[in-house]
Amino acid sequence: MATDTPMQLGMIGLGRMGANLVRRLMRDGHRCVVYDVNESAVQEMEGEGAVAARSLGDLVAKLEPPRAAWLMLPAAVVQPTLDQLAELLDPDDAIIDGGNSYYRDDISRAAQLAPHRIHYLDCGTSGGVWGLERGYCLMIGGEDGPVARLDPIFRTIAPGTGSAEPTPSRHGDGTAPEGYLHCGPNGAGHFVKMVHNGVEYGMMAAIAEGLSIIDHADAGLRKRAADAETTPLREPEAYQYEIDVGEVAEVWRRGSVVGSWLVDLTADALARSPQLDDFTGRVSDSGEGRWTVRAAIDEGVPAAVISTALTDRFQSRGLGEFADRVLSAMRSEFGGHAEKRSG
Amino acid sequence: MATDTPMQLGMIGLGRMGANLVRRLMRDGHRCVVYDVNESAVQEMEGEGAVAARSLGDLVAKLEPPRAAWLMLPAAVVQPTLDQLAELLDPDDAIIDGGNSYYRDDISRAAQLAPHRIHYLDCGTSGGVWGLERGYCLMIGGEDGPVARLDPIFRTIAPGTGSAEPTPSRHGDGTAPEGYLHCGPNGAGHFVKMVHNGVEYGMMAAIAEGLSIIDHADAGLRKRAADAETTPLREPEAYQYEIDVGEVAEVWRRGSVVGSWLVDLTADALARSPQLDDFTGRVSDSGEGRWTVRAAIDEGVPAAVISTALTDRFQSRGLGEFADRVLSAMRSEFGGHAEKRSG
Amino acid sequence: MATDTPMQLGMIGLGRMGANLVRRLMRDGHRCVVYDVNESAVQEMEGEGAVAARSLGDLVAKLEPPRAAWLMLPAAVVQPTLDQLAELLDPDDAIIDGGNSYYRDDISRAAQLAPHRIHYLDCGTSGGVWGLERGYCLMIGGEDGPVARLDPIFRTIAPGTGSAEPTPSRHGDGTAPEGYLHCGPNGAGHFVKMVHNGVEYGMMAAIAEGLSIIDHADAGLRKRAADAETTPLREPEAYQYEIDVGEVAEVWRRGSVVGSWLVDLTADALARSPQLDDFTGRVSDSGEGRWTVRAAIDEGVPAAVISTALTDRFQSRGLGEFADRVLSAMRSEFGGHAEKRSG
Amino acid sequence: MATDTPMQLGMIGLGRMGANLVRRLMRDGHRCVVYDVNESAVQEMEGEGAVAARSLGDLVAKLEPPRAAWLMLPAAVVQPTLDQLAELLDPDDAIIDGGNSYYRDDISRAAQLAPHRIHYLDCGTSGGVWGLERGYCLMIGGEDGPVARLDPIFRTIAPGTGSAEPTPSRHGDGTAPEGYLHCGPNGAGHFVKMVHNGVEYGMMAAIAEGLSIIDHADAGLRKRAADAETTPLREPEAYQYEIDVGEVAEVWRRGSVVGSWLVDLTADALARSPQLDDFTGRVSDSGEGRWTVRAAIDEGVPAAVISTALTDRFQSRGLGEFADRVLSAMRSEFGGHAEKRSG
Repeated sequence: MATDTPMQLGMIGLGRMGANLVRRLMRDGHRCVVYDVNESAVQEMEGEGAVAARSLGDLVAKLEPPRAAWLMLPAAVVQPTLDQLAELLDPDDAIIDGGNSYYRDDISRAAQLAPHRIHYLDCGTSGGVWGLERGYCLMIGGEDGPVARLDPIFRTIAPGTGSAEPTPSRHGDGTAPEGYLHCGPNGAGHFVKMVHNGVEYGMMAAIAEGLSIIDHADAGLRKRAADAETTPLREPEAYQYEIDVGEVAEVWRRGSVVGSWLVDLTADALARSPQLDDFTGRVSDSGEGRWTVRAAIDEGVPAAVISTALTDRFQSRGLGEFADRVLSAMRSEFGGHAEKRSG
Repeated sequence: MATDTPMQLGMIGLGRMGANLVRRLMRDGHRCVVYDVNESAVQEMEGEGAVAARSLGDLVAKLEPPRAAWLMLPAAVVQPTLDQLAELLDPDDAIIDGGNSYYRDDISRAAQLAPHRIHYLDCGTSGGVWGLERGYCLMIGGEDGPVARLDPIFRTIAPGTGSAEPTPSRHGDGTAPEGYLHCGPNGAGHFVKMVHNGVEYGMMAAIAEGLSIIDHADAGLRKRAADAETTPLREPEAYQYEIDVGEVAEVWRRGSVVGSWLVDLTADALARSPQLDDFTGRVSDSGEGRWTVRAAIDEGVPAAVISTALTDRFQSRGLGEFADRVLSAMRSEFGGHAEKRSG
Repeated sequence: MATDTPMQLGMIGLGRMGANLVRRLMRDGHRCVVYDVNESAVQEMEGEGAVAARSLGDLVAKLEPPRAAWLMLPAAVVQPTLDQLAELLDPDDAIIDGGNSYYRDDISRAAQLAPHRIHYLDCGTSGGVWGLERGYCLMIGGEDGPVARLDPIFRTIAPGTGSAEPTPSRHGDGTAPEGYLHCGPNGAGHFVKMVHNGVEYGMMAAIAEGLSIIDHADAGLRKRAADAETTPLREPEAYQYEIDVGEVAEVWRRGSVVGSWLVDLTADALARSPQLDDFTGRVSDSGEGRWTVRAAIDEGVPAAVISTALTDRFQSRGLGEFADRVLSAMRSEFGGHAEKRSG
Repeated sequence: MATDTPMQLGMIGLGRMGANLVRRLMRDGHRCVVYDVNESAVQEMEGEGAVAARSLGDLVAKLEPPRAAWLMLPAAVVQPTLDQLAELLDPDDAIIDGGNSYYRDDISRAAQLAPHRIHYLDCGTSGGVWGLERGYCLMIGGEDGPVARLDPIFRTIAPGTGSAEPTPSRHGDGTAPEGYLHCGPNGAGHFVKMVHNGVEYGMMAAIAEGLSIIDHADAGLRKRAADAETTPLREPEAYQYEIDVGEVAEVWRRGSVVGSWLVDLTADALARSPQLDDFTGRVSDSGEGRWTVRAAIDEGVPAAVISTALTDRFQSRGLGEFADRVLSAMRSEFGGHAEKRSG
């Protein structure tokens, strides 16, 4: 099922995401020129059919104008790469930032490139390690012209209509059922992707909390410390269940209202390791959650669930320790409560 | 694809859920005896092939022992119906409560039936108005024997393995991939269903908050009141986006990490009415969310996201008004802040 | 300033709270008969002027009817003590539970004593280790008659009007300005005390969080890991403050809107140890917070702040670990994110 | 008790706060030159002993160098006033911003004034309408020299040591026990004041929620709708209390752990109007809460309670309506739940 309109794309950054994007594009008949500071990554893609570039200049030279260069880079490397490209590219060329940049940077980067008449597109890309096979959900910001020109590229990368049932009430056109969407002007793509990740934080937390409640449904069977600092469980007879959380995640995958890709992934992780012993529970956060909460606050929109999910990640990494020490200190001051060291 | 082991089931309660369960069972070759206080509901199912019963006694008389009677009733009617059945049924018969009963009631109801040697099964049933076609996710509690005996019934009602890709890391047996699971002894089924609904609250809230943040991404374009009681938006230039939230929901359905049935449904609702004008935003809560939070507290398990999602529903119905008046009163007391009546 | 109406009271339980109540009562001219399972505690109070009892029976014998016996006991010991007293006391005697019992237990205990015509009073008592000097805030539930009869006792224990400025807009009678209040029938006292502690949780958390934000105002000076799992601080120049949190707590004690006893205590703790090194940050919760949240849910009243403060205490004790491992597992599944072990 | 070291201060902005600061300064022997765009405000202060200025230039002319000009202005007017003063003042003069400016603006304003060698001090001022009598809590940022020079001014404005008991464990010097504190370089004062207000949000919410739970302790007496969309109260007998919340606030003022100025103010408001009928419950937020949450996020510090308190204010103003409509729409889609219009 090759594309009707093969195009050429330059890919800068051949980490897992970048490499898989190139593979998906080439499978569909597009041609890719690839560059990475890691030479072996370039060679690997060359072996799979891509044209290798040894420098940004080389990449630009090997692309036919109007060029399209897709950045799939760690956040810290985007700006210096963009600065270089601004000098190398020609008017009407386009840069697509497919990483997780902050949408406010998109606005300033587009403004930086405007005098050069180089187009800037921000493209939030969701799909993780599964995108090569499933396709990637794309949330795009930028001017109408270059977004339209790159349509065949986006169409190939996206999952396509077959990846989900049609929405019954939906009528009318648009690319959203293909799995990609031009959301608005510069920054709009990363704005929507940012919020997408905020939603993801909230959904993940809801699932994790629920499975934890089920995992602790045996609380009445566990021996609890009996002292003044520990509340006894009033009705232990109501918490006598030893439930297999992995099987619960598996059954929720079918027919239930919480059915979702996140539940699918959770079921898979629990199938591999029923108590998830490979993990300690220090949960990183990678920026989008923080920015989403900030946007909510700036807009004056309540987003308590997403905020809470973010805060919980901070908690998981021990960042609330000083506050917790203050609480223990207060309890000691007013009630003479000694802090318990365990339990 | 008729079942290999046709069985007979009595269905008590022919609302939408009960009627659709009967239809799904009969399609697969099971025989159903049906009863409802609403005679026309009974006649409708009779027209579709069910055996009509005119009373609970009649239903019991028309079932062959060992009987299985499935209750699909409003919570308030379950106990009196059960009391009557306790007198009508014989030892080794089984009652299945498929509604949204509180799992603590299951424990006491099973104890009530035990002297009669009638089996009690609690069966959390998720699937909503879509279950007839998609199948229902079943979370079952009760003794091993009667659960095993009713396996053909559960298998028919559940969605079946074909309804989702296999979980890659999963090995071993079990019915979870069919979409039904024996979770444990009495109450375990409704316990898992209760938490399932708690998770649903959290996921719903995350999606709703995210779409709301996107809907308000035009905050910098809106005119805000400029007075001492209103914080000005510091960087209006960062909030100039007019984004179609319905299209966002649609694009998130494919390839994205937030892909889920809830997003599918949201996309459908927004396709029907882009600003959801048919709704006022008074969001009911139907018990399971409250019980889930209580379980988390009893167990001492953090469930901040689910708790917050529940609280937000109370807020949506104006139940925080007294607290909010207290806040306004305090502000007036210490700062002379007059309350704003709008904006 | 001895009381005008000296009374006699039996005190059962001579821990810190019980002993100090006896001291405060005797200072004001009341007579106390005291009992504790710990004989040396009894002797100590005898040395200070109390009448020693060697058993519950002895205590009852040494009190003149109508008797008043105040229980100041760990929650687990209240019921058995009450059971014994029910046999020893006479009609029209009164039992006061001054501990932190659950108000629902008050209701059933009052019902238990009613056939004996023994009065039951629940008396929430706040004041911690400071109450001997400052007096205790009393929240009382029970019948009008016995509450009125014991008024001189409550008046002595409470702080008295002099302990705070009069409320300017307040007119009319009532004992609240003395620092004690008959809140309603059985359980009402402990209900109000329960919520009081819930409010305390929220206030404590607000103060602790604020001081933590101030303590971390030097975030821009700290070196942060720079990797894909760590969000860089975008504007380190805005977080260059090294602020003495102890001095901040001290200055907030005077004239500020957050001025409160909790801030007083925090300032004291920080004066003793600027980084609170004696504490690890494992914060216990002792029941009232949990019950408050449950009451809010039962009533359908939003109490997001108190709920959150409770959840945070669970988090501080590591009770969210399983949920956090689920989150890390999901991140690993969809994004190949390896969990960071520190930072 | 006049100051030992009378100074001269220019006050720009004679709203309630500015005027009261002038009165408190003059009472203590300081001399004030005052200016406001509202001529009658200037005349009123002139009548009380201040020197009237008819323009910023006039004010500068009437102050002896090195001058000190205190701005007590709405946030929107600070920058233009500062721009004018930058032209009018001389090297070594000082501007104090006593309003609620964002601390990041302090940093840029100090940088703006630095080339003019004009000192900039930010002074967070808490005390509301009560400060004239009680004194104001001052949180100060800026260079050591000018802060030291203005010490007599700060000392007069602050409440003084007598306004609270000494902190028992405190030793050593410092002005914090007087009620004012030099927190650090430019912005540190407003940073601490910002967080102070965040703490205030959390404390206010905790108190309001608690009183609301008490106000609804009669939930078992109220008739609830009985339908599929409304969860019945399982144990109405536990919610039969009709408690006077105003009396509860009053009793909490003395001896209790929640004793605080905010409880004092709440008791006063409830004494005036037991159900607070003058208020609708639309609670404004004035910036500091938002900025506090943003600081917490930037620092990676959990601040769930303060965040929640902020979100609740948004909720109180109906800003969650779109999200709530999304929730109702989802419920309608999956469960056929019709939205309830009341109750």
